Amino acid sequence: MEIKLNFEKGNGLLPAVAQDWQTGQVLMLAFMNRKAWEKTLATGTVHYWSRSRNELWFKGGTSGHVQVVKDVFIDCDGDTILLKVEQQGGGACHTGYKSCFFQRIKEDGTIEIVGEKVFDPEEVYKK
Amino acid sequence: MEIKLNFEKGNGLLPAVAQDWQTGQVLMLAFMNRKAWEKTLATGTVHYWSRSRNELWFKGGTSGHVQVVKDVFIDCDGDTILLKVEQQGGGACHTGYKSCFFQRIKEDGTIEIVGEKVFDPEEVYKK
Repeated sequence: MEIKLNFEKGNGLLPAVAQDWQTGQVLMLAFMNRKAWEKTLATGTVHYWSRSRNELWFKGGTSGHVQVVKDVFIDCDGDTILLKVEQQGGGACHTGYKSCFFQRIKEDGTIEIVGEKVFDPEEVYKK
Repeated sequence: MEIKLNFEKGNGLLPAVAQDWQTGQVLMLAFMNRKAWEKTLATGTVHYWSRSRNELWFKGGTSGHVQVVKDVFIDCDGDTILLKVEQQGGGACHTGYKSCFFQRIKEDGTIEIVGEKVFDPEEVYKK
């Protein structure tokens, strides 16, 4: 079967979920346009589209924390991408956490930080 | 800490990933507006915003395949939601699969179906 991704539905951008291929931990979510999608498949390393910088974003290009593609899935209606990745450098989040989802909602509606920092962002992103 | 979700960033809609709370399998992705978010926290069952029907969507309202909230996380920049859920009725996908991500991209760029149907959609959605 052919791949049918509906980039038009998201005005050119589809959400892509990156999941640790071994533990199943959800690491992050970002968006892909068709170019990022094609680059990801062609290179075997994850590329997103940065909405804030408005440019193709080779994840780990600055930090070295590349995401190596292990498996790729698309959903039933072709508007979401699921990536199983091997996260290089320990952490996916620019804040130093393994996963971007380190804020847990507590019963009382406030937030607690879960997980531990795996790298020091000041070290990693310094010039 | 207070919850800071940036609904404005997505023009009122933020992506929400639903993950099986026990196996870690990613079941689906849909969008939430503020009302869906608040309903989800208040009721303990997942509510999304349906972009196709343009209305609040109580997941499982028709099929009975409700998603019971086990844990909720938000990401580093407050623009994505991660839900750990107990999926009632076996499957999250309206096509009958457990997960909406049942299409795997093969090496040759074609698709293979992975996973098995856990319910018959014609049975579940008939009047």
